[in-house]
Amino acid sequence: MNVELVNTGSELMLGRVLNTHQQFLCRRLADLGHVVSRQVAIADTGAEIQNAVREALGRADLIITTGGLGPTSDDITRELIAELLGKKLIENKNVLTHIEQFFAQRNRPRPSKTSVETFVPAGAEVFLNATGTAPGLAIKIEPNPFRPDKKTSWLVMLPGPPRELRPMFDNQIVPLLKREFAEEIFICRTLRSSGVGESRAQELVEQDLQPLVRQGLEIGYCARPGAVDVRLVASGATAARLIHAGEASVQKNLGANIFGFDDDEIENVVVQLLNAQKKTLALAESCTGGNIAHRVTNVPGASAVFLGGVVSYADVVKEKFVGVRAETLAAHGAVSEAVAREMAVGAREKFGADFALGITGIAGPSGGTVEKPVGTVFIALATASGVEVKKFLNAWDRETFKQVTATQALDRLRQMLSA
Amino acid sequence: MNVELVNTGSELMLGRVLNTHQQFLCRRLADLGHVVSRQVAIADTGAEIQNAVREALGRADLIITTGGLGPTSDDITRELIAELLGKKLIENKNVLTHIEQFFAQRNRPRPSKTSVETFVPAGAEVFLNATGTAPGLAIKIEPNPFRPDKKTSWLVMLPGPPRELRPMFDNQIVPLLKREFAEEIFICRTLRSSGVGESRAQELVEQDLQPLVRQGLEIGYCARPGAVDVRLVASGATAARLIHAGEASVQKNLGANIFGFDDDEIENVVVQLLNAQKKTLALAESCTGGNIAHRVTNVPGASAVFLGGVVSYADVVKEKFVGVRAETLAAHGAVSEAVAREMAVGAREKFGADFALGITGIAGPSGGTVEKPVGTVFIALATASGVEVKKFLNAWDRETFKQVTATQALDRLRQMLSA
Repeated sequence: MNVELVNTGSELMLGRVLNTHQQFLCRRLADLGHVVSRQVAIADTGAEIQNAVREALGRADLIITTGGLGPTSDDITRELIAELLGKKLIENKNVLTHIEQFFAQRNRPRPSKTSVETFVPAGAEVFLNATGTAPGLAIKIEPNPFRPDKKTSWLVMLPGPPRELRPMFDNQIVPLLKREFAEEIFICRTLRSSGVGESRAQELVEQDLQPLVRQGLEIGYCARPGAVDVRLVASGATAARLIHAGEASVQKNLGANIFGFDDDEIENVVVQLLNAQKKTLALAESCTGGNIAHRVTNVPGASAVFLGGVVSYADVVKEKFVGVRAETLAAHGAVSEAVAREMAVGAREKFGADFALGITGIAGPSGGTVEKPVGTVFIALATASGVEVKKFLNAWDRETFKQVTATQALDRLRQMLSA
Repeated sequence: MNVELVNTGSELMLGRVLNTHQQFLCRRLADLGHVVSRQVAIADTGAEIQNAVREALGRADLIITTGGLGPTSDDITRELIAELLGKKLIENKNVLTHIEQFFAQRNRPRPSKTSVETFVPAGAEVFLNATGTAPGLAIKIEPNPFRPDKKTSWLVMLPGPPRELRPMFDNQIVPLLKREFAEEIFICRTLRSSGVGESRAQELVEQDLQPLVRQGLEIGYCARPGAVDVRLVASGATAARLIHAGEASVQKNLGANIFGFDDDEIENVVVQLLNAQKKTLALAESCTGGNIAHRVTNVPGASAVFLGGVVSYADVVKEKFVGVRAETLAAHGAVSEAVAREMAVGAREKFGADFALGITGIAGPSGGTVEKPVGTVFIALATASGVEVKKFLNAWDRETFKQVTATQALDRLRQMLSA
């Protein structure tokens, strides 16, 4: 089965927006056994869109387009594709009702421009947009005049905003694909680790994987901020056995460094572990500036285990809100083992939590010294039995520093909870 | 001038990695006046790479490929392109010396695998890699046998790692492009707005822009979480005048809804305004869970104006840390105008800040009621002269809810600071 993506949008070609659809859709399609063979991005002008879709229709069993279904003047994908396929656009009452309800619920008048979204190509399957107005559309092209063999193709059009495209794909397009295309055996399993670098992770796992590689297992490595992914891929009848054996081998060699699988984020694992053990967490963040709280509260259900946190950017806040002593600040400086320790202990007490993390460091770009260069960070974990502090040097740009430090802090908690 | 990008890499097609090269290169090329007309991503297998490059050579004056130049077995772009163009690979002594020095400086033996990187297509310009080993390559194809008109094309091959590709493009490829291609006048200006939806933004601006559109100004709209970008594009001799007039027109019609330009984020604008007015900020975040603090602390220099924040997930934290009264919580519930008000006022007092934001709401997916559905949120802004609360319904998924709500809160502060 041949799958192609066509991303439309002048903002992509001008480099104003990152194309996140490619990764999302390629990932989801691979999970269904359909690896995308080609992705094309073009501006949202008539000739470009029609050329790209015509070429894809000449090759693929499934073509997915993104973007150009909205109400504004540069949203012309629907019209261009209908024209290419010789289909009329017909008003769809369900879409009209849906859009009217969308605005009624928000107590806003329906902009007249949205009327264009109610017109769909004749014969298209229509997917009402649960998080927006423009519907998704699917057209069965039978026979497909653009293919040399005239075989049937499906063309699926998805709206451009990620918050609309993603749930629509998962909830409405996946069922269509399962109905129309046989799933192929293709397994991709990612083991996510923290605490080792990419080369070291490879050194630890590759030798034991060699016999499986000779049988068809593919391995990939990907370095992330504070984490390394090991990817195992296999297809066909032996896929399950190869992946199973490969996973066991990587597990054995990376041990406790593995924090999760596939889409697991370390914060989801931590919330799960806290939930299972009925324990609570509080935070005192300085240099991570709320990044840990933000990531923990991204997890649905975090409120059951996360009591709260203090972002103590100013020194006086460290004193007042988490009880760091003025003498400690004066003697050791805000970025010190002693202050991290008092932050964690103070947050644990003040919030009445089972565990607390205290993080202080220098995110940069300024503020470093010879003794404490930019990237210096102390991470303290306080529990009922005491507090332990670890020092790291995360010499990255400011945002990467925050991500890496937050991951290290959450990983300390994870390792303790799963020990 | 026609420019196309070809991104190679199986990890892209499996959706395991985000393709950041497209945005980077499209943006840089647009700044030089060369808008990319097509970007293609394909797996790093022989047939796919040769097909994609052959097609691009049939259309483009400049083709840029990324990836596949490294030392491992899946790095085959150089060999495949040499074969396609009928060029021999010849060992280049400068590259060999460079790679030997690269490893000598790091006190590591040169891996024998890197020898493949020293072979370059005959006649290619070679760009030594300042941050890695694989050189960039540029080939002048004169005449280009794949083009119907046989005109000359340039093919540029860049290494895949972003930390190698980016400096190489900026420092070594841009001079080549300036030498070989006349710079074209091309201006892209983005006005970033908040507080209006995409359709409404268009309604407000489009009519006044029509005379400029007839003269060649292009307009684009892009909906972001809590924000809408209006993009103005023009080229040629009248570009500066059209952009200038277009910008003034959009400014007039969107007024205070415009928070910034091009790459401005609302948090950068807020930190700038606070800095300029020498004012400080504190936060009491419930449903945004630290997202506002995280965004504010992403801005270098935020520590001069941001004192800190409390992430008050549990009710008891709202009482203890920002002084919300138990009676208020009991009478109105945690998600209420009254609690938002007391959070902002309490945070302002406790942190000793000039301004404080208090945010309470229901991020979902659970926790909604008929009266207060998921997405309900109250945003309070406390100043020396009092406190004002606004209610919103942000009925999105959890992460979008947090982003949109954080943007609305920051925008309230921005509007007040710039009034």
